[in-house]
Amino acid sequence: MAVIEHALLPVRAGSEAAVAEAKPLIEASPGFISLKIFRPAATGQAYLLLVEWRSVADHRDGFRQSDRYGRWRALLHRFYDPIPEVSYFGEPL
Amino acid sequence: MAVIEHALLPVRAGSEAAVAEAKPLIEASPGFISLKIFRPAATGQAYLLLVEWRSVADHRDGFRQSDRYGRWRALLHRFYDPIPEVSYFGEPL
Repeated sequence: MAVIEHALLPVRAGSEAAVAEAKPLIEASPGFISLKIFRPAATGQAYLLLVEWRSVADHRDGFRQSDRYGRWRALLHRFYDPIPEVSYFGEPL
Repeated sequence: MAVIEHALLPVRAGSEAAVAEAKPLIEASPGFISLKIFRPAATGQAYLLLVEWRSVADHRDGFRQSDRYGRWRALLHRFYDPIPEVSYFGEPL
């Protein structure tokens, strides 16, 4: 069963371009299924990041231990330090 | 442009049945498009609620001001008090 990685990313000037540049790094990761980043609406202060993975391990033990994650962090570090906490969600009700 | 209402709902015993009972109330609301509630995976502590609306106003000024919202709160009140904070998201990057 696929899982959803969820994070709220604070809005920072310039971060959209950096995310666009970093996106292929996560997309190339084994077990990656899809990624969506939604802009805040109304009075929102954060982007909503939803990444679908084949399993939690594909994100946590795969992507996060890879060289690609080092580059991902290098691109996004100045916007998100520390990297926002992620949560995992599974089966819908 | 459609918007996404986002909320994290703490996991409470019995809340899944109450949400299932409350679901038709929100689904009947003008401007409602879709609702998804994902169970926590791994070490998660909350459900992820994502409701797609035609506009923020359809949720905030429509549903939240309606009699149906009173019944929705009555069903969910004992699980979520106060009702968790919602955020709105718009266009994807």
